Amino acid sequence: MNKNKKENNSLVIGFDADDTLWENENIFYETQKKFKKILKNYSDFSEIELLKIEKENLNYYGYGVKGFILSLIEALIKVSDKKIEAEIIENFLNLGKKMLDHPLKILPNVEDTLKQLSEQYILILITKGDLFDQEKKIHKSNLAHYFDHIEIVSEKNNSSYKKIFKKYDIDPKKFLMVGNSIKSDIIPVNSIGGKAIHIPFSYTWEHEIIDTKYISNDYIELEDISLIMPSIKKLLKI
Amino acid sequence: MNKNKKENNSLVIGFDADDTLWENENIFYETQKKFKKILKNYSDFSEIELLKIEKENLNYYGYGVKGFILSLIEALIKVSDKKIEAEIIENFLNLGKKMLDHPLKILPNVEDTLKQLSEQYILILITKGDLFDQEKKIHKSNLAHYFDHIEIVSEKNNSSYKKIFKKYDIDPKKFLMVGNSIKSDIIPVNSIGGKAIHIPFSYTWEHEIIDTKYISNDYIELEDISLIMPSIKKLLKI
Repeated sequence: MNKNKKENNSLVIGFDADDTLWENENIFYETQKKFKKILKNYSDFSEIELLKIEKENLNYYGYGVKGFILSLIEALIKVSDKKIEAEIIENFLNLGKKMLDHPLKILPNVEDTLKQLSEQYILILITKGDLFDQEKKIHKSNLAHYFDHIEIVSEKNNSSYKKIFKKYDIDPKKFLMVGNSIKSDIIPVNSIGGKAIHIPFSYTWEHEIIDTKYISNDYIELEDISLIMPSIKKLLKI
Repeated sequence: MNKNKKENNSLVIGFDADDTLWENENIFYETQKKFKKILKNYSDFSEIELLKIEKENLNYYGYGVKGFILSLIEALIKVSDKKIEAEIIENFLNLGKKMLDHPLKILPNVEDTLKQLSEQYILILITKGDLFDQEKKIHKSNLAHYFDHIEIVSEKNNSSYKKIFKKYDIDPKKFLMVGNSIKSDIIPVNSIGGKAIHIPFSYTWEHEIIDTKYISNDYIELEDISLIMPSIKKLLKI
């Protein structure tokens, strides 16, 4: 780490983790596919039931695999009119454990980009979800040493970003957030004065999809994380 | 908050939350009681099965209600030889939600003690468990404003306390931890040079019970949180 460069340059870059640095949503997708297959036995219901239950349960469970599996079991019981076999529920418990123990697949160009950026800028990993699971993934990723700070939050909104700005004495105008979710990584950061880079991922979780197209002068969309470095100057006009 | 007093006095007091500031373990106890009642239908098994499954699953789920309910469902399926009715599983899902939405009962003398101590000392809330659930409880407690910092960790061991000491530049000799768990609040803090006060709670979770009696010169046991103030000078010889 080049301390001098960092001191000369007060830009702070926040990075989302799931589906920005490593694959995540696709492991939910696979489990959901199996859920849909079982749904076919109960023709009256659709997968919308699961989404509805998941959304209602966010107030109880927050984000993450454990809450997802609990909601899935609840949906299975509901759609089957309490006739679902215990064995099927057991299968989903096992799928949940598999998800929690899934090997981490780092996305292309992530490590090189973090290495390069960490030499010049202060980097903060800002990820939402289950504390235990996120810590395990950060550990597995072997990327933690590129970050000056790691923040695991239960929700990414104006107030949680403001707390982080206050904690590390960050000027919002010198903050840039990089992530795959318009709802969690871009809108709240823009709305409190920061800039953002959106790097879409192939899957987006339904609850992260926003209804209308979001347009702002304070963010750009990039296809690949390796394009951050050449885009920073343009975005920040520095 | 009296800033001057705090600057003159570098003592930092860490407080555990669950079963130290507010009741927690008893809500698990109630759900376990219902589990035991159902177990009676499957005479071959004992509640040891649940404990075993819970312990094995800590590697997947970490601490907290969600993991507890997932382990409980796993145990129900196992002890019933996959014959458990979906309705019973549904009942436990609902019990889990009730646990997560349980009104918080602050223990006696907690608020007065925190108020008094916060005027003289730097206070840190150090609690382990599920991020989302712990944040909700801290919010519900209305006690957050007495603390200078709040740390929610996935595990309380030497390394997690060391991280906190580093983060806030705390001299271990000037650190005092208060909590109900010998395993999580006392032993790790003593072993890295800090002092501790043990305030036992009526229930202790099986996984927090240690095998042999722990004896150290660096901690004392108090019956009630209100006795902290008169004991500090004795413990720290200040």
